[in-house]
Amino acid sequence: MEKVSLAEAFDSFDETWSPRLAGELNGQAVKLAKADGEFVWHQHEDADELFLVNAGRLRIEFREDDDVVLEEGEFAIVPRGTEHLPVAEPEAEILLFEPSETRNTGDVETDETVTDLARLD
Amino acid sequence: MEKVSLAEAFDSFDETWSPRLAGELNGQAVKLAKADGEFVWHQHEDADELFLVNAGRLRIEFREDDDVVLEEGEFAIVPRGTEHLPVAEPEAEILLFEPSETRNTGDVETDETVTDLARLD
Repeated sequence: MEKVSLAEAFDSFDETWSPRLAGELNGQAVKLAKADGEFVWHQHEDADELFLVNAGRLRIEFREDDDVVLEEGEFAIVPRGTEHLPVAEPEAEILLFEPSETRNTGDVETDETVTDLARLD
Repeated sequence: MEKVSLAEAFDSFDETWSPRLAGELNGQAVKLAKADGEFVWHQHEDADELFLVNAGRLRIEFREDDDVVLEEGEFAIVPRGTEHLPVAEPEAEILLFEPSETRNTGDVETDETVTDLARLD
Protein backbone atom coordinates (compact mmCIF):
# COMPACT_ATOMS: atom_id res chain seq x y z
CA MET A 1 0.00 0.00 0.00
CA GLU A 2 1.60 3.24 -1.12
CA LYS A 3 1.10 6.52 0.63
CA VAL A 4 1.60 10.08 -0.56
CA SER A 5 3.15 12.83 1.53
CA LEU A 6 1.75 16.15 0.35
CA ALA A 7 4.92 17.95 1.46
CA GLU A 8 7.20 15.60 -0.49
CA ALA A 9 4.90 15.64 -3.49
CA PHE A 10 4.81 19.43 -3.70
CA ASP A 11 8.60 19.52 -3.28
CA SER A 12 8.99 17.27 -6.32
CA PHE A 13 7.95 19.81 -8.98
CA ASP A 14 7.98 23.54 -9.60
CA GLU A 15 5.77 24.11 -12.64
CA THR A 16 2.64 26.13 -11.92
CA TRP A 17 -0.92 25.50 -13.18
CA SER A 18 0.12 22.03 -14.31
CA PRO A 19 -1.57 19.45 -12.06
CA ARG A 20 0.19 16.22 -11.11
CA LEU A 21 -1.84 13.05 -10.67
CA ALA A 22 -1.38 11.88 -7.08
CA GLY A 23 -4.03 9.17 -6.88
CA GLU A 24 -7.22 7.78 -8.41
CA LEU A 25 -10.33 6.30 -6.82
CA ASN A 26 -13.86 5.64 -7.99
CA GLY A 27 -13.17 7.33 -11.33
CA GLN A 28 -12.04 10.47 -9.56
CA ALA A 29 -8.54 11.87 -9.33
CA VAL A 30 -6.50 13.57 -6.65
CA LYS A 31 -4.38 16.16 -8.41
CA LEU A 32 -1.74 18.45 -6.93
CA ALA A 33 -1.00 21.82 -8.46
CA LYS A 34 1.20 24.78 -7.74
CA ALA A 35 -0.31 28.12 -8.62
CA ASP A 36 0.99 31.63 -9.05
CA GLY A 37 -1.04 34.68 -9.95
CA GLU A 38 -4.05 34.53 -12.20
CA PHE A 39 -5.16 31.47 -14.18
CA VAL A 40 -7.87 31.71 -16.89
CA TRP A 41 -11.65 31.96 -16.75
CA HIS A 42 -13.13 28.54 -17.51
CA GLN A 43 -15.75 26.03 -16.51
CA HIS A 44 -16.18 22.27 -16.42
CA GLU A 45 -19.48 21.32 -18.00
CA ASP A 46 -19.77 17.89 -16.40
CA ALA A 47 -17.58 18.03 -13.33
CA ASP A 48 -17.74 19.53 -9.87
CA GLU A 49 -14.27 20.51 -8.69
CA LEU A 50 -12.88 20.64 -5.17
CA PHE A 51 -10.02 22.99 -4.26
CA LEU A 52 -8.19 22.36 -0.97
CA VAL A 53 -5.35 24.75 -0.17
CA ASN A 54 -2.25 23.06 1.25
CA ALA A 55 -0.16 26.24 1.46
CA GLY A 56 -0.54 29.87 0.51
CA ARG A 57 -3.81 31.55 -0.46
CA LEU A 58 -6.13 30.96 -3.42
CA ARG A 59 -8.92 33.33 -4.41
CA ILE A 60 -11.61 32.03 -6.76
CA GLU A 61 -13.65 34.58 -8.68
CA PHE A 62 -17.11 33.96 -10.12
CA ARG A 63 -19.14 35.85 -12.68
CA GLU A 64 -22.21 36.24 -10.52
CA ASP A 65 -21.15 35.44 -6.99
CA ASP A 66 -18.71 36.81 -4.43
CA ASP A 67 -15.12 35.64 -4.51
CA VAL A 68 -14.14 32.87 -2.16
CA VAL A 69 -10.72 33.19 -0.52
CA LEU A 70 -9.15 29.95 0.62
CA GLU A 71 -6.36 29.92 3.15
CA GLU A 72 -4.28 26.91 4.15
CA GLY A 73 -6.54 24.08 5.35
CA GLU A 74 -9.68 25.42 3.67
CA PHE A 75 -11.62 23.96 0.77
CA ALA A 76 -14.51 24.86 -1.52
CA ILE A 77 -16.41 22.98 -4.21
CA VAL A 78 -17.10 24.72 -7.53
CA PRO A 79 -20.23 23.19 -9.07
CA ARG A 80 -20.17 21.97 -12.67
CA GLY A 81 -21.01 24.59 -15.27
CA THR A 82 -19.88 27.46 -13.05
CA GLU A 83 -17.39 29.76 -14.70
CA HIS A 84 -14.53 30.53 -12.33
CA LEU A 85 -11.12 32.19 -12.22
CA PRO A 86 -8.54 30.86 -9.75
CA VAL A 87 -6.02 33.46 -8.57
CA ALA A 88 -3.12 32.57 -6.27
CA GLU A 89 -2.16 35.39 -3.94
CA PRO A 90 0.68 35.30 -4.78
CA GLU A 91 1.36 31.56 -4.71
CA ALA A 92 -0.46 28.49 -3.52
CA GLU A 93 -0.26 24.72 -3.32
CA ILE A 94 -3.61 23.17 -4.17
CA LEU A 95 -5.11 19.70 -3.89
CA LEU A 96 -7.83 19.14 -6.49
CA PHE A 97 -10.44 16.41 -6.39
CA GLU A 98 -12.35 15.93 -9.63
CA PRO A 99 -13.01 13.31 -12.33
CA SER A 100 -9.82 11.84 -13.77
CA GLU A 101 -10.56 13.15 -17.27
CA THR A 102 -11.24 16.76 -16.23
CA ARG A 103 -8.99 19.19 -18.12
CA ASN A 104 -7.38 22.01 -16.15
CA THR A 105 -8.73 24.78 -18.40
CA GLY A 106 -12.13 23.15 -18.85
CA ASP A 107 -13.97 24.52 -21.89
CA VAL A 108 -11.15 26.91 -22.79
CA GLU A 109 -8.00 26.10 -24.77
CA THR A 110 -4.98 28.21 -23.81
CA ASP A 111 -1.22 27.91 -23.46
CA GLU A 112 -1.93 26.57 -19.97
CA THR A 113 -4.05 23.66 -21.21
CA VAL A 114 -2.63 20.32 -20.11
CA THR A 115 -3.68 17.33 -22.19
CA ASP A 116 -1.43 14.65 -20.70
CA LEU A 117 -1.58 14.74 -16.94
CA ALA A 118 1.81 13.95 -15.43
CA ARG A 119 1.85 11.37 -12.68
CA LEU A 120 3.86 12.14 -9.58
CA ASP A 121 7.32 10.54 -9.72
CA MET B 1 -19.93 29.95 -2.49
CA GLU B 2 -19.33 28.37 0.90
CA LYS B 3 -15.97 27.23 2.11
CA VAL B 4 -14.97 24.79 4.82
CA SER B 5 -12.12 25.34 7.25
CA LEU B 6 -10.81 21.96 8.33
CA ALA B 7 -9.67 23.40 11.67
CA GLU B 8 -13.09 24.89 12.45
CA ALA B 9 -14.88 21.79 11.24
CA PHE B 10 -12.85 19.46 13.45
CA ASP B 11 -13.37 21.82 16.39
CA SER B 12 -17.13 21.53 15.95
CA PHE B 13 -17.52 17.93 17.15
CA ASP B 14 -15.88 15.43 19.50
CA GLU B 15 -17.42 12.07 18.68
CA THR B 16 -14.95 9.54 17.27
CA TRP B 17 -15.46 7.13 14.37
CA SER B 18 -18.57 9.02 13.33
CA PRO B 19 -17.88 10.86 10.06
CA ARG B 20 -19.39 14.26 9.35
CA LEU B 21 -20.39 15.16 5.81
CA ALA B 22 -18.35 18.21 4.80
CA GLY B 23 -19.13 18.36 1.09
CA GLU B 24 -20.35 16.41 -1.94
CA LEU B 25 -19.22 16.41 -5.56
CA ASN B 26 -19.68 14.07 -8.50
CA GLY B 27 -21.49 11.54 -6.32
CA GLN B 28 -18.57 11.45 -3.91
CA ALA B 29 -18.42 12.80 -0.39
CA VAL B 30 -15.84 14.59 1.70
CA LYS B 31 -16.23 13.27 5.23
CA LEU B 32 -14.37 14.35 8.35
CA ALA B 33 -13.83 11.95 11.22
CA LYS B 34 -12.10 11.94 14.54
CA ALA B 35 -10.51 8.67 15.48
CA ASP B 36 -9.14 7.15 18.66
CA GLY B 37 -7.62 3.74 19.04
CA GLU B 38 -8.76 0.76 17.02
CA PHE B 39 -11.82 0.70 14.74
CA VAL B 40 -13.16 -2.58 13.27
CA TRP B 41 -11.99 -4.82 10.44
CA HIS B 42 -14.20 -4.18 7.40
CA GLN B 43 -14.22 -3.65 3.66
CA HIS B 44 -16.22 -1.69 1.10
CA GLU B 45 -17.20 -3.99 -1.76
CA ASP B 46 -17.84 -1.24 -4.32
CA ALA B 47 -15.88 1.73 -3.09
CA ASP B 48 -12.27 2.83 -2.99
CA GLU B 49 -11.59 4.96 0.08
CA LEU B 50 -9.09 7.76 0.57
CA PHE B 51 -7.71 8.59 4.02
CA LEU B 52 -5.93 11.94 4.46
CA VAL B 53 -4.60 12.68 7.93
CA ASN B 54 -5.20 16.26 9.09
CA ALA B 55 -3.72 15.76 12.57
CA GLY B 56 -2.29 12.91 14.59
CA ARG B 57 -1.33 9.53 13.21
CA LEU B 58 -3.41 6.78 11.60
CA ARG B 59 -2.18 3.25 10.99
CA ILE B 60 -4.13 1.07 8.58
CA GLU B 61 -3.69 -2.68 8.86
CA PHE B 62 -4.37 -5.16 6.06
CA ARG B 63 -4.81 -8.91 6.09
CA GLU B 64 -2.15 -9.63 3.50
CA ASP B 65 -0.09 -6.49 3.17
CA ASP B 66 2.13 -4.37 5.39
CA ASP B 67 0.54 -1.68 7.53
CA VAL B 68 0.58 1.85 6.21
CA VAL B 69 1.22 4.59 8.77
CA LEU B 70 -0.12 8.01 7.86
CA GLU B 71 1.19 11.12 9.55
CA GLU B 72 -0.25 14.61 9.21
CA GLY B 73 -0.39 15.64 5.54
CA GLU B 74 -0.19 12.08 4.19
CA PHE B 75 -2.84 10.08 2.38
CA ALA B 76 -3.44 6.57 1.08
CA ILE B 77 -6.18 4.97 -1.00
CA VAL B 78 -7.61 1.63 0.12
CA PRO B 79 -8.95 -0.20 -2.94
CA ARG B 80 -12.48 -1.60 -2.93
CA GLY B 81 -12.82 -5.10 -1.56
CA THR B 82 -9.72 -4.77 0.62
CA GLU B 83 -10.27 -5.64 4.24
CA HIS B 84 -8.66 -3.04 6.47
CA LEU B 85 -8.43 -1.96 10.10
CA PRO B 86 -7.87 1.73 10.87
CA VAL B 87 -6.05 2.39 14.15
CA ALA B 88 -5.46 5.90 15.46
CA GLU B 89 -2.24 6.22 17.43
CA PRO B 90 -3.61 7.40 19.77
CA GLU B 91 -5.85 9.98 18.08
CA ALA B 92 -6.27 11.39 14.61
CA GLU B 93 -8.32 13.76 12.51
CA ILE B 94 -9.08 12.22 9.13
CA LEU B 95 -10.48 13.49 5.87
CA LEU B 96 -12.18 10.76 3.83
CA PHE B 97 -13.06 10.82 0.13
CA GLU B 98 -15.46 8.10 -0.91
CA PRO B 99 -18.88 7.63 -2.47
CA SER B 100 -21.62 9.45 -0.57
CA GLU B 101 -23.42 6.22 0.29
CA THR B 102 -20.40 4.38 1.69
CA ARG B 103 -21.01 3.17 5.24
CA ASN B 104 -18.23 3.65 7.79
CA THR B 105 -18.08 -0.02 8.80
CA GLY B 106 -18.57 -1.32 5.25
CA ASP B 107 -19.73 -4.94 5.20
CA VAL B 108 -19.73 -5.21 9.01
CA GLU B 109 -22.50 -4.11 11.37
CA THR B 110 -21.26 -3.03 14.79
CA ASP B 111 -22.06 -0.49 17.50
CA GLU B 112 -19.92 1.92 15.49
CA THR B 113 -22.04 1.64 12.35
CA VAL B 114 -23.44 5.01 11.27
CA THR B 115 -26.52 4.89 9.09
CA ASP B 116 -27.43 8.58 9.00
CA LEU B 117 -24.39 10.65 8.21
CA ALA B 118 -24.47 13.95 10.12
CA ARG B 119 -23.80 17.05 8.09
CA LEU B 120 -21.40 19.61 9.53
CA ASP B 121 -23.22 22.42 11.30
